Amino acid sequence: MRSVEWDAGALKMIDQRALPWRLEFVHLETVAQVAEGIRNMTVRGAPAIGATAAFGMAIAARECAEDDMAALLVCLEQQGELLKAARPTAVNLAWGVERLLDVAHSGECKTVDELRETMLLAAQQIADDDVAINRRMGGRGAALVNKGATILHHCNTGALATVDYGTALGVIRAAHEDGKQPHVLLDETRPRLQGSRLSAWELEALGVSYAIIPDTAAGYYMREGEVDIILVGADRVAANGDIANKIGTYQLAVLAAAHDIPFYCVAPTSTIDLALPDGDAIPIEQRDPVEVTTPYGAAIVPAHFKARNPAFDITPHRYVTGIVTEQGIARPPYTDSLARAVAGYEL
Amino acid sequence: MRSVEWDAGALKMIDQRALPWRLEFVHLETVAQVAEGIRNMTVRGAPAIGATAAFGMAIAARECAEDDMAALLVCLEQQGELLKAARPTAVNLAWGVERLLDVAHSGECKTVDELRETMLLAAQQIADDDVAINRRMGGRGAALVNKGATILHHCNTGALATVDYGTALGVIRAAHEDGKQPHVLLDETRPRLQGSRLSAWELEALGVSYAIIPDTAAGYYMREGEVDIILVGADRVAANGDIANKIGTYQLAVLAAAHDIPFYCVAPTSTIDLALPDGDAIPIEQRDPVEVTTPYGAAIVPAHFKARNPAFDITPHRYVTGIVTEQGIARPPYTDSLARAVAGYEL
Repeated sequence: MRSVEWDAGALKMIDQRALPWRLEFVHLETVAQVAEGIRNMTVRGAPAIGATAAFGMAIAARECAEDDMAALLVCLEQQGELLKAARPTAVNLAWGVERLLDVAHSGECKTVDELRETMLLAAQQIADDDVAINRRMGGRGAALVNKGATILHHCNTGALATVDYGTALGVIRAAHEDGKQPHVLLDETRPRLQGSRLSAWELEALGVSYAIIPDTAAGYYMREGEVDIILVGADRVAANGDIANKIGTYQLAVLAAAHDIPFYCVAPTSTIDLALPDGDAIPIEQRDPVEVTTPYGAAIVPAHFKARNPAFDITPHRYVTGIVTEQGIARPPYTDSLARAVAGYEL
Repeated sequence: MRSVEWDAGALKMIDQRALPWRLEFVHLETVAQVAEGIRNMTVRGAPAIGATAAFGMAIAARECAEDDMAALLVCLEQQGELLKAARPTAVNLAWGVERLLDVAHSGECKTVDELRETMLLAAQQIADDDVAINRRMGGRGAALVNKGATILHHCNTGALATVDYGTALGVIRAAHEDGKQPHVLLDETRPRLQGSRLSAWELEALGVSYAIIPDTAAGYYMREGEVDIILVGADRVAANGDIANKIGTYQLAVLAAAHDIPFYCVAPTSTIDLALPDGDAIPIEQRDPVEVTTPYGAAIVPAHFKARNPAFDITPHRYVTGIVTEQGIARPPYTDSLARAVAGYEL
């Protein structure tokens, strides 16, 4: 079962807002629906968003009714902008759109119908590649996990955050499959609680030992000596190794350094944005404060109480021990190692 | 309006579990009810618990039906143990019990009825003193707050956490009354959300500018340069200045040091436990994980999902810039300054 896949002429996705209570699926048939599904976090997780964007462009090719190739390309560009505007931080969204626009502009298709078919196949290939890449990352990252280690994990980076298998949670899964019996402390990850709602749901299903902890307790367990390694995902990695990831990642990294705990990011090369020299230029999405004051419809405080809701933060590369990619583990200096990984070299 | 006061032969308390939705009061008439009210957090906040314990002992003096002074004293000791067992971390609980046992053992009362009346007056004096002490701390601490400063605050340390006025939130209130126009970032403080439910409710009523933030965003705002000073309370302060406070305090202190942000604790001398050389001996209460998975009855995840719920953590004194007491601001070395404050010297 994949979090995102093509099914009967539509994009079928798990509705991640309904978990862990109900495993529900939505079928999206228009670009507007796909953009809204990204925006309202029916789908979330950078790699899953990347595949969704690719399928969104395949849908765009069908939705754009033009019979003329040049006009179709113009329409695709416009629809691509619409998709890219859905959320600003994860680079995989733009990456998925651009990959499909590259296919459209390659000139390899002679007819508009051929292009439509080719774009769908390209999106499916991106989805298949994501699963294969995650399994490779899992294997590479599992080497970092000692037998019986306790891993601190933030947000959700599992099968749900990708097409399948996961990034940081994929490493945990691979370590589990290797018989290393990891134990996982899951930051619940307020405000949207991806740790308790999604990661715990996945680890329950996989039979991996875990406990949900409030985000306030991460430092406590580090000081208690219970945390051997910290694994997180990423929504964008700058050329120098600065990382944009779910809000709360930065403070975990500072705490890891204060406790001499290795801090690893697990991200496919599609998440690396070499066009950005450092993390300061990464846009941080500010989401509706209602997610803080009334999470999932359950009001904590009256609606007029004021709140702020930054969705991501930037972790400077000096706090990052290594970045696990499908090409191997990038180490400082990241400007070199990440460039080589993106260029397809083994690290 | 006080969070805890004597009313018509019973202990009247705000039920803090009903806020911010309903301002409800409970009337407690037995020691068992008082102990349960502390345990289930109808009342919380170290100074408020201290006053509650004192009133609990006044109730014990009435509940112990003995006509004989020696037998009454034995009963009071037993009831005191019952109260002290309600929660382990805040020293004010034991402090309030011991203060009233000192009165009982002073030998100043000739009859059991006189002792019963004297103990009630002593409890009321402790409650009155708490308010006066908090106002003094507020004035002393407000000197640390620059005009227009943004203050990061954790948990609830306001009127609700005390008999009235508050400790760290009392400093903010004093700065506000001084016309310094502070702005407050309120950590929501999972799992029990005292920041959003209680502190925001208080600042709304006082007209102080604030925004609730997820606990995951504290480091983000520090790195953004938005935080000028951090103010927290304490449940127990060891002789060397190590601090036990609400879970999440420790990681704020580490982050403050990493960002060169002053980190102050605001606590009356009743919270200082000179009998403990350092924080390692302070017992950390582990509460029911259901507070994490089903906060206030709203389930985040199914009941069988595993979670952990440490209620407090220890902040080593090296991270604490100063401790604001009613005797002035204690500075390192704390073994000297705290001992002098407890002995009643002005700092």
